[in-house]
Amino acid sequence: MKKEISAEIMTIGDELLYGQVIDTNSAWLGQELGKIGIRVKQITSISDNPEAICEALTQAISRVDIVLITGGLGPTKDDLTKHTLARYFNSELQLHQPSLEDVESIFKRFNRPMLEVNRQQAFLPASCTPIRNVLGTAPGMLFHEQETVIVSMPGVPFEMKRMVTDTVLPYLQDHFHLPQIIHKVIQTIGIGESFLAEKIADWEDNLPAHLKLAYLPYLAGVRLRLTGFSDNQQELETQLQEQVDRLTALIPDHIFAYGEVTLEEAIGQLLKDRNLTISTAESCTGGLVAHKLTSVPGSSAYFMGSVVAYNNEVKKAQLGVTTEILEQHGAVSEETVRAMAEGVRKLLKTDIGISTSGIAGPDGGTPDKPVGTIWIAYADAHQTIARKITYNKTRLLNIEYTTLQVLDLVRQSLRRRVEE
Amino acid sequence: MKKEISAEIMTIGDELLYGQVIDTNSAWLGQELGKIGIRVKQITSISDNPEAICEALTQAISRVDIVLITGGLGPTKDDLTKHTLARYFNSELQLHQPSLEDVESIFKRFNRPMLEVNRQQAFLPASCTPIRNVLGTAPGMLFHEQETVIVSMPGVPFEMKRMVTDTVLPYLQDHFHLPQIIHKVIQTIGIGESFLAEKIADWEDNLPAHLKLAYLPYLAGVRLRLTGFSDNQQELETQLQEQVDRLTALIPDHIFAYGEVTLEEAIGQLLKDRNLTISTAESCTGGLVAHKLTSVPGSSAYFMGSVVAYNNEVKKAQLGVTTEILEQHGAVSEETVRAMAEGVRKLLKTDIGISTSGIAGPDGGTPDKPVGTIWIAYADAHQTIARKITYNKTRLLNIEYTTLQVLDLVRQSLRRRVEE
Repeated sequence: MKKEISAEIMTIGDELLYGQVIDTNSAWLGQELGKIGIRVKQITSISDNPEAICEALTQAISRVDIVLITGGLGPTKDDLTKHTLARYFNSELQLHQPSLEDVESIFKRFNRPMLEVNRQQAFLPASCTPIRNVLGTAPGMLFHEQETVIVSMPGVPFEMKRMVTDTVLPYLQDHFHLPQIIHKVIQTIGIGESFLAEKIADWEDNLPAHLKLAYLPYLAGVRLRLTGFSDNQQELETQLQEQVDRLTALIPDHIFAYGEVTLEEAIGQLLKDRNLTISTAESCTGGLVAHKLTSVPGSSAYFMGSVVAYNNEVKKAQLGVTTEILEQHGAVSEETVRAMAEGVRKLLKTDIGISTSGIAGPDGGTPDKPVGTIWIAYADAHQTIARKITYNKTRLLNIEYTTLQVLDLVRQSLRRRVEE
Repeated sequence: MKKEISAEIMTIGDELLYGQVIDTNSAWLGQELGKIGIRVKQITSISDNPEAICEALTQAISRVDIVLITGGLGPTKDDLTKHTLARYFNSELQLHQPSLEDVESIFKRFNRPMLEVNRQQAFLPASCTPIRNVLGTAPGMLFHEQETVIVSMPGVPFEMKRMVTDTVLPYLQDHFHLPQIIHKVIQTIGIGESFLAEKIADWEDNLPAHLKLAYLPYLAGVRLRLTGFSDNQQELETQLQEQVDRLTALIPDHIFAYGEVTLEEAIGQLLKDRNLTISTAESCTGGLVAHKLTSVPGSSAYFMGSVVAYNNEVKKAQLGVTTEILEQHGAVSEETVRAMAEGVRKLLKTDIGISTSGIAGPDGGTPDKPVGTIWIAYADAHQTIARKITYNKTRLLNIEYTTLQVLDLVRQSLRRRVEE
């Protein structure tokens, strides 16, 4: 078996050390490198400081095959990384014409005058291979030193991610002749990690040695990732699919998608396949259900609109929730969410209406209905289904959890419709 | 001037390196240490591996005065930290009776049988000062080596935080003589990093040596952080405030808050102060503006509701946008967003209505109105203001950017109202 290729992630910037920004880049890089079989051995966060950068770089080069540096490449004064790298690799800065053109085109696109500091961003160490940044003004740089590949990228997450996906990962796969790895992702919802592990324990224990399972828990369930290593890609693909089929038979109700598909994308596909439209009536989720649904490109085909009814007057006037219901049962009740889901369905003339009403906190709870008491509902032409949720972490987590639950209620209801 | 006391944070655990967990402990520690004048010089994340732990520890001890280690102290096999530290400090494990009593009392509280692995957790290196863990079963450990203080704590965030607050910070304050550090955060919007840097260059160049400025860019602006080091806290506070006032005079229109305040919180405060209510009519933002506004606790005091009008029929029926406007100017036009903002204000009976309509992409663009063409509007009893935005990164970023812009339009309009 080939030597395992190792990497170190170096993040540069006082904002990380002072704790004013949480480092999410490293976790994303760890995941992406893991997917192509590269193991992250260390993550090092250091200051915008030439000595610190040089010391960390020397140590990293002695430890690993790949050093990925993020941060410290903006146009302002505190960004010393580029000059430090130029000195470290004994290389003069020189104008890189294609990078200058990229920077110029970005300023042209936004119709803004380009400043000298931006022009300076196209000056790069002569010994590096520049990496194109199609989303920002700081190009990336790739260096070689003692068998180690060093890549420096801006810290802005979307710029860095695009560079990694488009350029860095393909380069590393090619340069290090990485073995074939195939991942199968199985997206589950509505079952916690321990229960899931117990339910699939026999299957997991009997997996062949070259297949590995990872549990990646999230707010409302677990993403499972089955990874296989082999030189025979076709055989591996067949073996993985067999195992995924076995797994599916064990937890059919909890799987909402295979592969990198979000719940809102899965629901979008279900709606498109069935030629159905949807609308939302939101109280405690405050628009997040609509935002999730519309974050999917092409969602205008099935999503018509939403009424965010934060105030009871809006629930009455727009959604037709009666004064009786609100007075007898309160805004957070089965009766209210049923009326909301049915109301928005009629108002916006859609096949399906869904609704949420709950106490997201931190205030507003009562002994009867404490913070975290939440009702959700689904309505179509044939039926209305309501469910109660009890969930209390933070306001934002409560809102996000409710959003996932009501989207999952759509999935379950559509699934049942087909089976009936 | 006293020597600055420096710290390194070491986090142990493969879950961080593989990107399965985002490291939030380090950011919290960075903030807390900063508040008592300790500067974090490096954050190092490593594997559950004795060699990696020893190497990182040796390097950290050579670099800094304080090493705070989190993770690797649970009861399971992969937690080797304690044994590694015992060997590293040439110290035998021995039973620490008070720790055993703490562990026993935790199991008694949850009425669960205590296992041998849990009893083992009360065995600690003889040379350490144990740190009580009142919320979990793994005690912390404090060591001294070559003038450096080394503290090892569990990775479970709430256990670690309690230990740090109750024991570690008071110990460090007492053990070291700490200069004061104060941060001032200035939140700006609507000006890019380069333009901002140019606008405040003279001021920045003339800052006294003990004050440092950092640029922390985000989607629609830059957070500025001015940091000062001094033994005289009151003098430093005055000096910082003077500089913040000078800075404010240079870019008055672009500052929306001081300190750790989000734009939606700042707007919430403006609305509450003026006793005004708001509603949103959203097309391309699909509910995100409403979600942002309602993510603030207590927002029900000023946010009444929202109509997400993804479909033109909804724009007509709910918001009163006329067929003429839609046919003559299209859904993405100044006329439409004006009608939407005015329409939702009337419909939901609020003082202010805001609206968005644009082409978020990736599809739906035309030569006339390419992806990234976005209109936003603000309406109150006196006036309606519309603005065009051109912004095209990814669908989600376009939506998020538009959301920040329309919220900023509220801020600017409320500001102008006061000045008039």
